Amino acid sequence: VEAMAAPRHPSTSGAGASASVGAGAAAAAVAAGAVLVRRRPRARALARRAASDFAHCGYNTAVGGRLRITSILDAPDGGRSLIGSKVTVCGWIRTVRAQKGLTFLKVNDGSTFQELQAVIEQEAEGREALATQGAGASVRIEGVVVESPAKGQEVEISCKAADHSVKIIGEVDPKVYPLAKKFHSAEFLRTIAHLRPRTNLIGAVSRVRNALAIGTHRFFQDRGFLYVHTPIITTADCEGAGEMFRISTADPLPPAAEAVAKGAEGGDEFFGQPAFLTVSGQLSVENFCCSLGDVYTFGPTFRAENSSTTRHLAEFWMIEPEMAFADLNDNMDCAEQYIRHCVSAVLEQCGPDLEFFNLRVDKEVLERLKLVAGEPFERISYTEAVERLQKAVEAGDVQFEYEVAWGKELQTEHERYLTEKLYKKPTIVYNYPKDCKAFYMRLNDDGKTVAAMDILCPGIGELVGGAQREERLDVLDKRMEAMSLSKEDYWWYRELRQYGSVPHAGFGVGFERLVMLCTGVQNIRDVIPFPRYPGHAQF
Amino acid sequence: VEAMAAPRHPSTSGAGASASVGAGAAAAAVAAGAVLVRRRPRARALARRAASDFAHCGYNTAVGGRLRITSILDAPDGGRSLIGSKVTVCGWIRTVRAQKGLTFLKVNDGSTFQELQAVIEQEAEGREALATQGAGASVRIEGVVVESPAKGQEVEISCKAADHSVKIIGEVDPKVYPLAKKFHSAEFLRTIAHLRPRTNLIGAVSRVRNALAIGTHRFFQDRGFLYVHTPIITTADCEGAGEMFRISTADPLPPAAEAVAKGAEGGDEFFGQPAFLTVSGQLSVENFCCSLGDVYTFGPTFRAENSSTTRHLAEFWMIEPEMAFADLNDNMDCAEQYIRHCVSAVLEQCGPDLEFFNLRVDKEVLERLKLVAGEPFERISYTEAVERLQKAVEAGDVQFEYEVAWGKELQTEHERYLTEKLYKKPTIVYNYPKDCKAFYMRLNDDGKTVAAMDILCPGIGELVGGAQREERLDVLDKRMEAMSLSKEDYWWYRELRQYGSVPHAGFGVGFERLVMLCTGVQNIRDVIPFPRYPGHAQF
Repeated sequence: VEAMAAPRHPSTSGAGASASVGAGAAAAAVAAGAVLVRRRPRARALARRAASDFAHCGYNTAVGGRLRITSILDAPDGGRSLIGSKVTVCGWIRTVRAQKGLTFLKVNDGSTFQELQAVIEQEAEGREALATQGAGASVRIEGVVVESPAKGQEVEISCKAADHSVKIIGEVDPKVYPLAKKFHSAEFLRTIAHLRPRTNLIGAVSRVRNALAIGTHRFFQDRGFLYVHTPIITTADCEGAGEMFRISTADPLPPAAEAVAKGAEGGDEFFGQPAFLTVSGQLSVENFCCSLGDVYTFGPTFRAENSSTTRHLAEFWMIEPEMAFADLNDNMDCAEQYIRHCVSAVLEQCGPDLEFFNLRVDKEVLERLKLVAGEPFERISYTEAVERLQKAVEAGDVQFEYEVAWGKELQTEHERYLTEKLYKKPTIVYNYPKDCKAFYMRLNDDGKTVAAMDILCPGIGELVGGAQREERLDVLDKRMEAMSLSKEDYWWYRELRQYGSVPHAGFGVGFERLVMLCTGVQNIRDVIPFPRYPGHAQF
Repeated sequence: VEAMAAPRHPSTSGAGASASVGAGAAAAAVAAGAVLVRRRPRARALARRAASDFAHCGYNTAVGGRLRITSILDAPDGGRSLIGSKVTVCGWIRTVRAQKGLTFLKVNDGSTFQELQAVIEQEAEGREALATQGAGASVRIEGVVVESPAKGQEVEISCKAADHSVKIIGEVDPKVYPLAKKFHSAEFLRTIAHLRPRTNLIGAVSRVRNALAIGTHRFFQDRGFLYVHTPIITTADCEGAGEMFRISTADPLPPAAEAVAKGAEGGDEFFGQPAFLTVSGQLSVENFCCSLGDVYTFGPTFRAENSSTTRHLAEFWMIEPEMAFADLNDNMDCAEQYIRHCVSAVLEQCGPDLEFFNLRVDKEVLERLKLVAGEPFERISYTEAVERLQKAVEAGDVQFEYEVAWGKELQTEHERYLTEKLYKKPTIVYNYPKDCKAFYMRLNDDGKTVAAMDILCPGIGELVGGAQREERLDVLDKRMEAMSLSKEDYWWYRELRQYGSVPHAGFGVGFERLVMLCTGVQNIRDVIPFPRYPGHAQF
């Protein structure tokens, strides 16, 4: 269940592999992607941007100006309106192929999944230099846009006149270039994380990641939420969630207990007491919620769990909105609308990238995204969920490894059954037993459950976790006592309930989980630029 | 030169202080701000949002729905179109005042600098409960919008019918509420950072900060840049800039040198080698630039310098764009346009907040922002700058503590003279002596200078630092040798120059410096939600 980087089915790529010179892993799949685009012309309309968006705003006088490739190929007409225009494009060569006195280049500049074909004739200046270059070289091409006879593209660049040119900007030695081969495992690509954004996989992930990050800001800003930067370095521990990284300037670093004993006066701790990397911005962002209303934080969070799985990172990004004067229903409404907004944004903006994921990474990803964007989520209480699961077991519809019983955590197998078999759509489970959840979640009137909710997603599992917060100081105190938490440690959190307390609710979304949902990539290490996990913090 | 939180001139506030009950530090200045708005009616048009923006999208069923106060008071007509409508608002009381059988409330909900007045008559339900409450209590008010006879506002809420009500949501004991006094120093407010966003100062800073963060994303997204999350945890050191925080799970932590000697195999380091908090995302984001083109990172960065100044934090946010196929001119163009875009966004969206800063914090802030947004920046080479400064000294126009000589760093006094006296506007100084700058900056053809640039700003000093990067591997290697840097440590950075190198350029902006520019706040600890500096990492 590992992610992949190179195309799984090279034989279907149709990239003319035998004739290609130093074709990178990415090249074949790009060609395949281009074929796909021809079959589904709507993909162009769904692409990231229209040509007119960028024509004016480049910062590229170093090359005498350039047009981004997305401005040409992702235009609604596939670039036809530019036919006859002289243009300059720059990028990195994906393939070079010489044939009958012509040189065929395919170039990608990262602005789109698609690569632009350039056909270099004898008359064009600089053609000879291409002979020794292969995938990975950077190039500047000046030529005229012409209709393309090739499959998968409306237009290409023709360099055939004396004032047309191709210029190698940065050379590459195909014999040592790490990507100058056809196929690379995701594991290998992680060892060259500085180069892997040049591959189809990581390039597409990067564009989807960007669309999701900006979609996040757009969603909350459009609804009047304020973006708050909660702190990374903390001396507080949010519900003791996972192990924390300790930070210090001391070398060697004395035991934490010793530093605590010495206190702010005597120790050599930079912050006067042991300090850690945050595991969640929630408690901090609640301060701002209880002053400024609807807010959200979006920043890095950390877990020092020494586990090497495909679903955990030591450093990952979280989105945590917090709403004032809101309850659990508001929380579910907001979270559902947020997820659907983000998925819709990716569907609208990342057409060619999604076609690639659907073809090469996960054949169900497009269908899943349309389901998420298009239909309301299911909502059931924890109690109902347990009943439905128990009925399914009794009816012999399913067997579980773990028992389903009220008061016990739902296991992954239970969650998957709910979303993938029973409801076949994202499912919000709410009102969990209080003993399954954190101290700050609001106790319901039944005295047994708290106003918590999780959004479970087919193929992904838990995507969102949230709750209405306990705003009643006396109830909060009782919960903290029952869980042996120190009131002193949370003095400021308690004071929010003492001075003008308000009902409020919020949730957390693991950003990388969202990227996995939208790409189908199965290993979380491949959806973040530079993954950090045990033994790995290079680059 | 400390920042302030409470109004400096309470006598001008006109808030009826003698009659107010438990007015918070913020209240008087809010009233003053409201008066200001009346004097400058355009401020309303400049306010953050129009009423229609939010009316539909609240998550607030916990209170039966509410209208944000910005939807009323910041509407272009000051809320007049709502006269006669029954509305519900929620927020925190700033002042409560009983007079002739009426109770006057002023309420703020964080959505705007402005507070809404509510006049509660005998008939309204819940009026009695207000008698024991003061600033800081949270309240829900249901009433009708009426024309206001009071100064500084077009409309107010009237609660006078049996179906109108005022309800205390969360009580406050005015005797212990930390903000239930008139004036508070910025120092005191830092000790209650969980409550200080309820003050005028931190509320306004938070809204400006939000506008700047979103303005940042809008600027780069509109120009086709991709947002990249560069890593926080790193084993690399960007130009050894400042001291770094070390992170670990080991307790106690062995000396770093010992961990290095043990290596990835033998040590008990989580990441296999000593790991640190990043001081800059630049080197990481260059990897993506050299694959995907124009990119930017916007995230937290860290410095472990043990200095307590008003201009340094241990944790702060940086914006670092990086442009492919770009040179120093592109870099200057982009940086200037970015700064002017952000300042324009604040001028457009944060009218009432800026009025407050201009009245209470820095009487020149509005003028300075209009200058920055309105006029092109000055651009001079370092060599010209030295000549101009030397001439000024020779002419007796100025005396400096530090000598001005080619090859020496420009000191703060020199920079201030350039921007505040000589050019009286933001000034870009470029082409610095290579020995003043980092190894990765591109060597100019003169062999003496590098293609670096700094943007200096009146009243702020250095706001931006950037450079075209050295894309020629042989030149880079020579510079690294000259500076005794290890090629092995930077193997991946060097490989970008080996495989399809491209000219590229970028810059870094300290986000908090930008917030200081746009607010006039002089202490950096008051422009970030939870400041981290030696001895302080609470909340």
